[in-house]
Amino acid sequence: MRAFLALIFLTFVMNVESSRPLMAFTPSHGWMNDPNGQFYDSKNELWHLYYQYNPNDTVWGTPLYWGHATSKDLSTWKDYGATIGPDRDEDGIFSGNIVVDHNNTSGFFNDSIDPRQRVVAIYTYNTEGSQTQHVAYSLDGGYTFEKYEHNPVLDVDNINFRDPKVFWHEPTNQWIMVIALSQQFKIQIYGSIDLTNWSLHSNFTGGLFGFQYECPGLIEVPVEGTDESKWVMFIAINPGSPLGGSSNQYFIGSFDGFEFVPDDSQARLMDYGKDFYAFQTFDNAPKESGVVGLAWASNWQYANLAPTKEWRSSMTLARQMTLASRNMNPETKVLSLLQKPIFGESVVAANKISKRNITGQDEQAVKIHKNSTGTFSFDITFSVDSSKNQTGQLQVISGQNGESIRAGFDPTAGQFFVDRGNTSGLKENPFFTDKTSAYVEPWKHQNDLPVYKMFGVIDGNLIEVFLNDGIATLTNTFFIPGTEGLEYLEIESSSDAIHIVESEVKELKLRATS
Amino acid sequence: MRAFLALIFLTFVMNVESSRPLMAFTPSHGWMNDPNGQFYDSKNELWHLYYQYNPNDTVWGTPLYWGHATSKDLSTWKDYGATIGPDRDEDGIFSGNIVVDHNNTSGFFNDSIDPRQRVVAIYTYNTEGSQTQHVAYSLDGGYTFEKYEHNPVLDVDNINFRDPKVFWHEPTNQWIMVIALSQQFKIQIYGSIDLTNWSLHSNFTGGLFGFQYECPGLIEVPVEGTDESKWVMFIAINPGSPLGGSSNQYFIGSFDGFEFVPDDSQARLMDYGKDFYAFQTFDNAPKESGVVGLAWASNWQYANLAPTKEWRSSMTLARQMTLASRNMNPETKVLSLLQKPIFGESVVAANKISKRNITGQDEQAVKIHKNSTGTFSFDITFSVDSSKNQTGQLQVISGQNGESIRAGFDPTAGQFFVDRGNTSGLKENPFFTDKTSAYVEPWKHQNDLPVYKMFGVIDGNLIEVFLNDGIATLTNTFFIPGTEGLEYLEIESSSDAIHIVESEVKELKLRATS
Repeated sequence: MRAFLALIFLTFVMNVESSRPLMAFTPSHGWMNDPNGQFYDSKNELWHLYYQYNPNDTVWGTPLYWGHATSKDLSTWKDYGATIGPDRDEDGIFSGNIVVDHNNTSGFFNDSIDPRQRVVAIYTYNTEGSQTQHVAYSLDGGYTFEKYEHNPVLDVDNINFRDPKVFWHEPTNQWIMVIALSQQFKIQIYGSIDLTNWSLHSNFTGGLFGFQYECPGLIEVPVEGTDESKWVMFIAINPGSPLGGSSNQYFIGSFDGFEFVPDDSQARLMDYGKDFYAFQTFDNAPKESGVVGLAWASNWQYANLAPTKEWRSSMTLARQMTLASRNMNPETKVLSLLQKPIFGESVVAANKISKRNITGQDEQAVKIHKNSTGTFSFDITFSVDSSKNQTGQLQVISGQNGESIRAGFDPTAGQFFVDRGNTSGLKENPFFTDKTSAYVEPWKHQNDLPVYKMFGVIDGNLIEVFLNDGIATLTNTFFIPGTEGLEYLEIESSSDAIHIVESEVKELKLRATS
Repeated sequence: MRAFLALIFLTFVMNVESSRPLMAFTPSHGWMNDPNGQFYDSKNELWHLYYQYNPNDTVWGTPLYWGHATSKDLSTWKDYGATIGPDRDEDGIFSGNIVVDHNNTSGFFNDSIDPRQRVVAIYTYNTEGSQTQHVAYSLDGGYTFEKYEHNPVLDVDNINFRDPKVFWHEPTNQWIMVIALSQQFKIQIYGSIDLTNWSLHSNFTGGLFGFQYECPGLIEVPVEGTDESKWVMFIAINPGSPLGGSSNQYFIGSFDGFEFVPDDSQARLMDYGKDFYAFQTFDNAPKESGVVGLAWASNWQYANLAPTKEWRSSMTLARQMTLASRNMNPETKVLSLLQKPIFGESVVAANKISKRNITGQDEQAVKIHKNSTGTFSFDITFSVDSSKNQTGQLQVISGQNGESIRAGFDPTAGQFFVDRGNTSGLKENPFFTDKTSAYVEPWKHQNDLPVYKMFGVIDGNLIEVFLNDGIATLTNTFFIPGTEGLEYLEIESSSDAIHIVESEVKELKLRATS
């Protein structure tokens, strides 16, 4: 009887939460925004993700907690719910991060705690009239936390001072904190030897301002094809981004432990979609994983109104970040981020179609139907022949019940697009922009024709598109009523100028892992 | 009989060209893109506008000319069509500008030419394999041109070297040219004493890169409320702007006749809509007019596909530019451009409705019907009470036949928007984004409530919205079939939080001027 009721309940939950992504993290219930405190536990070989969390409602509100989830492979998640909460119901544990204090610089640990699990969280404690930086530590590897008794550890008497990101800087033997003096458009850089006493080193500003800065990050990122690395500064701006609302920008430069100096004055966007915000990297990630991070897949312009029910908001897929020198145009190469989605070992193909050499107009070049999850990936390499009629597009279309999203390439404009205009959820919202787009130089030339690559994932109510190995990305949410994974995904070509060199479409599912 | 046929022809033309703006300049027929060579003839008190022009088709193509138009007041235009053409059909007279060479530094003029009409054009001559800078001069005040016999005057052996903007720099007694080394993301600054011999002073780069730089500008702009002025550098980028495709950015700094040094590293957008590109100012504008300029109201992503017939593309309205120190948020003021639309003396109200003190939900707070032109302006000052239910929006809606555009403010998001999603023209185009938006701080506070101002013009197929005296603007084209000016404009409030302090809606028409 109990099993039967549980089944009814489960069916009900699955219906109302029908657009929940499979691989991108969502909270089991309640409201979620920024990712926080991501770290890798190298003892248990486990990725930890924390997140801004209101378990009591599906809109932002206080008391605001850090939620907590873990994953063996960054694709299958286990959610533990609220983990660090404020002292008063009107307060919030705002964004921040976690470091692994191997050497017990903080003094919070004794020898009984494995050095790989000496977990210290640094976050903004928010009250109605203050934002100060607090510390908490975990004696059980990140599942429960003790608040430091002498909090706050940093207070500059400014009510818009938040979102610390801390990391160990080996060359200067100190902890570094980057944090936003949000409304002064300053990213402040502090140093500490013990995580509790901080001194100001420098300030950084630049690029797009918007209304304010939030959620900075600073990390050393390898340059592909070299033994070198550069430092990358991430800054979230909201509202007032050029695309409307929330957006992430980044800067490439050098960091000596005291000052971040950008290599140039270029303003770079991390993503050309509407739903990529508050990106943050994992601390202590294993060397072979490289630089790994993820963002909140939403936009404050409409985040609280997204038509999901038991839960609201997902993260993006985890992405691996590298730098590469790539052409912006035929004359100039610049260093840019390459972002690649991570598919853990739990992700397997439920279904797969591969096709090569599709030329000209083919309205249903490839079509895959839902068999299992309705979560799809697509990977297309194509060339463009400008001597042919360029009318029409290469499109990947996915949907059901007459609604659909599409991603594609338009030979006339020579640009990529994602279009969520044929979906009804949030259509009336004045900020839910239908079309976003990006320009990239050809991936290579073959037989004198430009060749491009478009990889994408459609996961629940999220589409993430990666162009030419991730030199530009487009991340957008969409809301098709009654979705439990989409019914189909097809590749269409309506242009004689497009030649699909190769394509692979998969339906993805998760298998149980050890 | 001839008059009768002319009338039939005119009626036909009016039908097929139904969405033609009234005040924003459009060519009588053919294709137009960037504004070029704008100058003011202070002898005849006449504004001259030139423009990139293909008279033989309604898509971009060669031979590409400079077209020419004049206006007494920047609102009523007289079009002269093709004025400077290339030597060969496959070439183009690309963008550039005009200066008034009062002192005959060029030696092109003799005493018979009034100093106020010594017109010299500097433009890019484009061939399939080269872009070089050429000069031409006019002995009749700008209606016909003689090409300089020793062209080119500047050739750096680069095929992406274009769009010179020249002005007289009084403190250093020289002509200054800013010009784009497009694909190196360099704005080069040259000096000359005679408009024909040029030497390189410096390079400038920064901000958003996109695929390439185009159409730079540099001009001294007064700072409101002070006796000071700053130099503003304009740069157009296309494609690859954050909003998709074409966009204009600007920098504020100092210029000593040799080098432009920006005050800060902020990247600033000139406009938050999709259709504002290649902005350029008028040379020799009278002091009382201040800094005056206009942009091409389109986007290369879809410009050639816009569903107009005999003509394609309009300019924006002329705008007056000043600088002002304004809050980006409660903690920080920065210097930003203020842009105000110019309505010449030929623009008069055909119809007007003014209303004050409209509170709460009022679905048809103000409604004005087409009487004359279907060109409307709206001017709304409103306050927002966050203690009340903020659901709903303040909206200005204009349309006909069930299609419409809207501009408004959403109290929940605290942001402004323009939405062209309910129009059918170009709807299928993957780059014709429906919704664009902007954040601005309140214009002022009254009775502790934030007060905002939204001014807008709906002129043919163009909507331009100016927030809080033009601290942010949103410029978008739209295409409603069968439009000959829209049928109505209404102000709606569906939010209890909105109080309309005052509003004025006008239908605008042009009267004949001397």
